[in-house]
Amino acid sequence: MSKLLIVGGVAGGASAAARARRLSEFAEIIVFERGAHISFANCGLPYHIGGAIDERDKLLLQTPESFHNRFNVDVRILNEVIAIDTGNKTVKVRNLKENSEYTEAYNYLVLSTGAAPVHPNISGINNPLTYSLRNLGDMDDIISVIDTNRPEHATVIGGGYIGLEMMEALHNRGINVTLVEQASHVMRTLDEEMSEVVHTEIRSMGVDLQLNTALQSIRYITSRAAVSQNDGKDLDESNRCGYLELATDKNRKTRTELLIVAIGVRPEIDLAQSAGLEIGTLGGIVVDSQMRTSDPVIFAVGDAVEVRNFTSDRSALIPLAGPATRQGRIAAGVIFGEQGEYCKTQGTAICKVFGLSVASTGMSEAALKNEELEYEKVYVHAANHASYYPGAETVSLKVLFSQDSGKILGAQATGRDGVDKCIDVLAVSQRAGMTVEDLQHLELCYAPPYGSARDIVNQAGFIATNILKGSHRPIHHHQLQQLTNSHVLLDVRTPEEIQTLGTIPGAINIPIDVLRSKVDELPKDKEIIVFCQVGLRGYVASRLLNNRGYNTRNLIGGYLTWTNTQ
Amino acid sequence: MSKLLIVGGVAGGASAAARARRLSEFAEIIVFERGAHISFANCGLPYHIGGAIDERDKLLLQTPESFHNRFNVDVRILNEVIAIDTGNKTVKVRNLKENSEYTEAYNYLVLSTGAAPVHPNISGINNPLTYSLRNLGDMDDIISVIDTNRPEHATVIGGGYIGLEMMEALHNRGINVTLVEQASHVMRTLDEEMSEVVHTEIRSMGVDLQLNTALQSIRYITSRAAVSQNDGKDLDESNRCGYLELATDKNRKTRTELLIVAIGVRPEIDLAQSAGLEIGTLGGIVVDSQMRTSDPVIFAVGDAVEVRNFTSDRSALIPLAGPATRQGRIAAGVIFGEQGEYCKTQGTAICKVFGLSVASTGMSEAALKNEELEYEKVYVHAANHASYYPGAETVSLKVLFSQDSGKILGAQATGRDGVDKCIDVLAVSQRAGMTVEDLQHLELCYAPPYGSARDIVNQAGFIATNILKGSHRPIHHHQLQQLTNSHVLLDVRTPEEIQTLGTIPGAINIPIDVLRSKVDELPKDKEIIVFCQVGLRGYVASRLLNNRGYNTRNLIGGYLTWTNTQ
Repeated sequence: MSKLLIVGGVAGGASAAARARRLSEFAEIIVFERGAHISFANCGLPYHIGGAIDERDKLLLQTPESFHNRFNVDVRILNEVIAIDTGNKTVKVRNLKENSEYTEAYNYLVLSTGAAPVHPNISGINNPLTYSLRNLGDMDDIISVIDTNRPEHATVIGGGYIGLEMMEALHNRGINVTLVEQASHVMRTLDEEMSEVVHTEIRSMGVDLQLNTALQSIRYITSRAAVSQNDGKDLDESNRCGYLELATDKNRKTRTELLIVAIGVRPEIDLAQSAGLEIGTLGGIVVDSQMRTSDPVIFAVGDAVEVRNFTSDRSALIPLAGPATRQGRIAAGVIFGEQGEYCKTQGTAICKVFGLSVASTGMSEAALKNEELEYEKVYVHAANHASYYPGAETVSLKVLFSQDSGKILGAQATGRDGVDKCIDVLAVSQRAGMTVEDLQHLELCYAPPYGSARDIVNQAGFIATNILKGSHRPIHHHQLQQLTNSHVLLDVRTPEEIQTLGTIPGAINIPIDVLRSKVDELPKDKEIIVFCQVGLRGYVASRLLNNRGYNTRNLIGGYLTWTNTQ
Repeated sequence: MSKLLIVGGVAGGASAAARARRLSEFAEIIVFERGAHISFANCGLPYHIGGAIDERDKLLLQTPESFHNRFNVDVRILNEVIAIDTGNKTVKVRNLKENSEYTEAYNYLVLSTGAAPVHPNISGINNPLTYSLRNLGDMDDIISVIDTNRPEHATVIGGGYIGLEMMEALHNRGINVTLVEQASHVMRTLDEEMSEVVHTEIRSMGVDLQLNTALQSIRYITSRAAVSQNDGKDLDESNRCGYLELATDKNRKTRTELLIVAIGVRPEIDLAQSAGLEIGTLGGIVVDSQMRTSDPVIFAVGDAVEVRNFTSDRSALIPLAGPATRQGRIAAGVIFGEQGEYCKTQGTAICKVFGLSVASTGMSEAALKNEELEYEKVYVHAANHASYYPGAETVSLKVLFSQDSGKILGAQATGRDGVDKCIDVLAVSQRAGMTVEDLQHLELCYAPPYGSARDIVNQAGFIATNILKGSHRPIHHHQLQQLTNSHVLLDVRTPEEIQTLGTIPGAINIPIDVLRSKVDELPKDKEIIVFCQVGLRGYVASRLLNNRGYNTRNLIGGYLTWTNTQ
């Protein structure tokens, strides 16, 4: 009879345990969880802080008892595995309740130790008003500070998924929020020009968004009132009653009453490292495609491991819940004789930012550049469903693809509705190895309340395919800076649009619908750079001119994409 | 210089014309449209009747003038092509405004003649209160009858997409509606057990749904009041003021004031047939993968042609807007030297039925049976997003797949939210040639407001893969009738669930969480048929029993799917 030990009882660990039991009724399965809960909804934590999820109990998907009853798994919460003896195949466990230690033997071991929030090296960071959010205990602490102190102002450091969700949660609690982000834009998975609408959304809600800004120091000021009130008896509570003075590298000082640190996570590898398991250059546990570590009976899953990036096929750290649960399932399968393989990680992810949905899959342009991979890109701005049907919302989509193979390398989308669907379609397309040509042929649900006869993804396919075939010569927003006087910048929108929306400096205007009659006004010895609002009319106009012997390029994504970069 | 004539100015015809112009600035392009409008939003017609789309003008996507200005295409509305002389490469055109005829020569011809509503052979069908809905004129007529007569009751014959949309439109206008459907369920693209929730939704809105019912005769009764009022001057208007007496084969008589016939459409092939172009056995124009008819310079696109069914690779009539516009685009490309191919039709479609969304792709089980193709199936009933996040709605999904290859053959889904996304993901997966095993690995957008770490499509992949591997032995709802006393029917839900929801006659109850302690109560010499509410606990229980030496099968889709068939 096999004995399987699992370290960590959330996402990957819980799914490994459940799958293991389904495959083997008589194996001994023990889950060690150093925290007080297993299988809790960690992705739901910010939403309970913000109030969207009203009951805390809803976050407790399983208890040790329910998990034992259902799966006959011995779940030991508040039990921390502190060492692995790979030679003897045993682990040393500390029982945190009883402060005792014991040893447990294994035939197989699954490590699902997760990733811990990164704590920046900032003077004053260790203070009672600074939190990060990893588990229910952190959530409880943050809620308790809010309920006790009723802060008027809170600061979130880091504009990634958790930072944004915490920003929204705190805002929803009626707190004024400052969001500090060191980079030029929030969400690393988005490219800069795609994040502009996110910034606009954040600012429109009254959040003080500070980009290109690093926190430099924190001064913790104890509230005298609170101390005197508490008479020094309850120092911890009284400490919480103070405030923080934050100083940034922009020489700005902010008084804040709660600081959330969400600048990223780092694989928790101490246990694996001490046991001599191979650690990758990125700092995650190295596993093969079956989630096996360098020790053949030890598996590792979830945020603690390095995966293969689906797009680049290089090592990557991509901490996400979906991959973690699937990896747990696969590891258990392999241990009990199945042939499963984990098929790399695309990194498909989505974030709600107030009324906006922001999603992506595959690699960003910045990441492709960074890895020196070749690519081309298209932008589409189109309604999520038939524009004549009420409630249509614009989805802005960017698709990155290989010029050599036509394969999809990544996609990003923002909008108020239909963003998840759009990125899901592209995530499946990329995983299937489809090219942008294939996107043209996708048959997606269409009726006026749901889509368009030419779906936004079809449109991206049309544009990209025309570019690959050479019948659509693109120019990108960042290339407009390189124009010289051998170019003519031609705006083919109507004068009304230009008056309302503005135009690109230096552009002349000939509306597309009169272009044929005025075509002689354009010089044949210069390259005509055409643009419209989103790129469609610009394409029609550039074809028209092209077919009449003009040298043209069309601004992909049109004026709208360009304005997002200004 | 090429001369391209296009017959029909909606969907396929309009997209062919626009694409042709983008590829050739100097070709002569003429579009003949016998109706009064081109490129109108025919999918929007029911929604304007029902009031969701308030302004009629929103349905006019292009006018002949706007199309001419943009694309330099000569659009001739109220001009009907009445004959093709393939030898001389000319068409004979009737100008319906001037009631004159003329001839036009072509180098290439594109037929986009569409499909016409089928008119049933029912006595009395020709009366002034009976309409079908194909174009703006039909829509205007129906609106005019409603506005003039203020009918209290209307009847829709046919429960396909247009019938259902018209049912809802009339209901939204405050009219009592009877929907008559000859088959046992609405929507041919759905299987019967999946349509039950649609019937419930329809009836919950107060619509009188008559299934398994055929209309047998119609008696038109002229309203005397109206005639006298109008003094016989305006016979047409006065006629409209009467009512109809409908008799069905169920011996039911209904008095109704408006009858909408929506029992299907038939390719409009008269022109093609008279010209000697090959017509298929299904009654559509035969085309090759480049949309070329049996005459190499004549192309046909849209609802008038027979396509290859993506799933069966057999001929099919699949009248849908998306394929039509893509076919038009491809035909124009081929004519102007591109290498495009139309890649078969899956038939992905969606319909809003009051608060419900109903969508499908690929083939239904009924169609697979009919074509004698092998298949297996799974059902999943799961929340569209994390159930702990507010607003979660159940999506019911059926996936049909090949037992031999694992490939996806079709999918159907119903629910109040997330249905379009679910079917889009499966439509892309099917088109990519993915197997159900691949569905396990799909990385879809997950955050609590949007999805689940294990998406409903992943879940379908897990179940189907376990079935293919033999680790999950399925039984289907319709097979329960074949149980004998060599079977034990085991309900593993809680007693509370059974009290609230009922159970399957003959079932014994052992809740899953106490099953291990009571396992000895089950006989080892009988097959244990396990079920729960949706199939997940039943699977866990059946694995438990299996691993303990019991012979088991699990009811796929659980009690919920079973109740949909009762």
